[in-house]
Amino acid sequence: MTKNYPYRLLTPGPVPLHPEVRKILAEPMLHHRTPEFKRVLKNVSEKLKDVFETKQPVFMHTSTGTGAMESAIVNTLSPGDDVLVVVSGKFGERWADMVKQFGLNVHPLLVEWGNAVDPQEIEKQLALHPTIKAVFSQYCETSTATVHPIRDIASIVRKRSETLLIVDAITAVGAMELKMDEWGLDVVIGGSQKAFMLPTGLSFIALSEKAWGFNQKSRLPKYYWDLRTEKKSLEKGETHFSSAVATIRALEISLQFLTGEQKTQTLARIKKLAKATREMSKPLGLQIYSKFPSASVTALLTPGEIDSQKLREHIEKEYNLTLMGGQDQLKGKILRIGHLGYITDDDMAATTEILYLALKDLGVPLAANAREEALAALRAELK
Amino acid sequence: MTKNYPYRLLTPGPVPLHPEVRKILAEPMLHHRTPEFKRVLKNVSEKLKDVFETKQPVFMHTSTGTGAMESAIVNTLSPGDDVLVVVSGKFGERWADMVKQFGLNVHPLLVEWGNAVDPQEIEKQLALHPTIKAVFSQYCETSTATVHPIRDIASIVRKRSETLLIVDAITAVGAMELKMDEWGLDVVIGGSQKAFMLPTGLSFIALSEKAWGFNQKSRLPKYYWDLRTEKKSLEKGETHFSSAVATIRALEISLQFLTGEQKTQTLARIKKLAKATREMSKPLGLQIYSKFPSASVTALLTPGEIDSQKLREHIEKEYNLTLMGGQDQLKGKILRIGHLGYITDDDMAATTEILYLALKDLGVPLAANAREEALAALRAELK
Repeated sequence: MTKNYPYRLLTPGPVPLHPEVRKILAEPMLHHRTPEFKRVLKNVSEKLKDVFETKQPVFMHTSTGTGAMESAIVNTLSPGDDVLVVVSGKFGERWADMVKQFGLNVHPLLVEWGNAVDPQEIEKQLALHPTIKAVFSQYCETSTATVHPIRDIASIVRKRSETLLIVDAITAVGAMELKMDEWGLDVVIGGSQKAFMLPTGLSFIALSEKAWGFNQKSRLPKYYWDLRTEKKSLEKGETHFSSAVATIRALEISLQFLTGEQKTQTLARIKKLAKATREMSKPLGLQIYSKFPSASVTALLTPGEIDSQKLREHIEKEYNLTLMGGQDQLKGKILRIGHLGYITDDDMAATTEILYLALKDLGVPLAANAREEALAALRAELK
Repeated sequence: MTKNYPYRLLTPGPVPLHPEVRKILAEPMLHHRTPEFKRVLKNVSEKLKDVFETKQPVFMHTSTGTGAMESAIVNTLSPGDDVLVVVSGKFGERWADMVKQFGLNVHPLLVEWGNAVDPQEIEKQLALHPTIKAVFSQYCETSTATVHPIRDIASIVRKRSETLLIVDAITAVGAMELKMDEWGLDVVIGGSQKAFMLPTGLSFIALSEKAWGFNQKSRLPKYYWDLRTEKKSLEKGETHFSSAVATIRALEISLQFLTGEQKTQTLARIKKLAKATREMSKPLGLQIYSKFPSASVTALLTPGEIDSQKLREHIEKEYNLTLMGGQDQLKGKILRIGHLGYITDDDMAATTEILYLALKDLGVPLAANAREEALAALRAELK
């Protein structure tokens, strides 16, 4: 059956690539120590500051987003440091696991999955444990498709000169409003296969002036992630190690959509796709899982008897569309649809149709006009 | 002038991509948790064992080669461990710098640049410092284009159950004979932008059974590089973090040339390109720098008054060909020509011509028939 359906990818990452990105990935290889690549690196470095809304240099690691998470830890902290970690899903758990591996002393702030953290809770914890050196949080917790009030958290943490706010913005930067300097975020990290609509393989990280101060005192061992050497190299117009030339050249293309005039339009488009997804899912009987839904990804609760994992696999096998399921406590319960990357209105209509067909295939009773209502709801939002 | 010359890249990495590799890099994005990608991952994992000539799993990190160097350290050793590091160029220095950052106690074994390490020296050092937990060496020291006798070194180190041999084979694996299990190499690492002829962004690492034993006792902190979690994931047919899908799909193409029947031909071709380069450079008055020249890359000494850095830049600017110069003590003295990747006979002839023209441009007195002799020498080797 898949023959009739072209392959579509609507996950929270990787995401569909822009045709121009695909074109440049196929270009003959260029060396990283050439004038042309130096020009590219200079240009993307400047533009990344615009995406992060910071005056600080934004560095690229050749790694997945988790690499930048590790970089954030080893570049700012020391063994034995007390840290507060917001744990509201898989990626909050990842922060907690990572800091433990590096010998930090974790104070987990557990938040019910699907809910956002209450900034007052953070304030309370900081008062209770005044030795806390860093607060770790996601901006968007991808596993639950939930946004945390990162700006409000920042307004609390920035009052303390002895505490950093370290933000996993992997599915947020380039996808929703983020003003690193103005809000006072101390470490912000991103990943290439999200709003940057590139293949997996590059991560981004920027440190505030306050975080650079912590960097001078940090005693965790570091070499590959060492931002002090990257900083010196970037000042000379190079990356310290071999550059991921192909992806960085492609980044030059995708940054056109994430900076300057285009930025507002891109953020609005992502928001629109999220809203359209939520609206089209109502006639299909699918509820929004998160209490604070993200613009990057929507989590839909599947009806009582439907295992979302089975639905996901059925959709992939029969309709050539990859969506994501849930993990751990959400396994079998949610279906996640991504809103980042090169997603056309046609992709959205196809996704709506496929959801309808797949639910029917699995025996979900749907109203006779559910399909038309879902498509109409979608169109109303996308127009 | 560059208009008449198509861009050519003959460096020790990155290297020219195979047309089929370029094609697959431009494919629409595929998710890493799909049956098709699981098939690819399984296939490349099997084939990588053939390249490394090992029964052990070969892991992929999303990183440059330096990332795999870091992985080798943190997965096997502990703070305070004594280690012996062969330092015969920039990459030996890198091993020494890295292990210091991770709190290991370095015994450097300094070797004159351009020379290979004498295995007897390693035996002597191990006798002198019986607490040494690991010997670090390059197989090919790329900065000096020199091969170390890694097989002989292995025959010494493998006798000691308390010492590992950790080999940076970044410009060696897939490019020259390497039998991890048979020779007794304990940790072998590689990088995508070398013999694998892919964009920079993937690294490879395999551990011997002995190294896995060390892994259990290793106390260096690790998360992104943790091969214990990667091992569990690979057994389930996944990478632990997001997979670098585009590069891994391209790897499936390039592994066709590095495994099975094709392997012998590819190694022979690389050797032939190296030999041809050495022969064509004689009539041009260029001496081989290394006493133990590598098949992956050749370092040529430029004539007395010629700054090799200037020659390199002139060649790039005027003839659209990127070669590499020398680093540190070799800066200005050598020109390095790579032999890996998709290099055609036509590329070799063009490189020969360009070298001749560029040397003339810079005022090097060359015999009237030097050009023809160089081309004839090249052709004789390539035929």
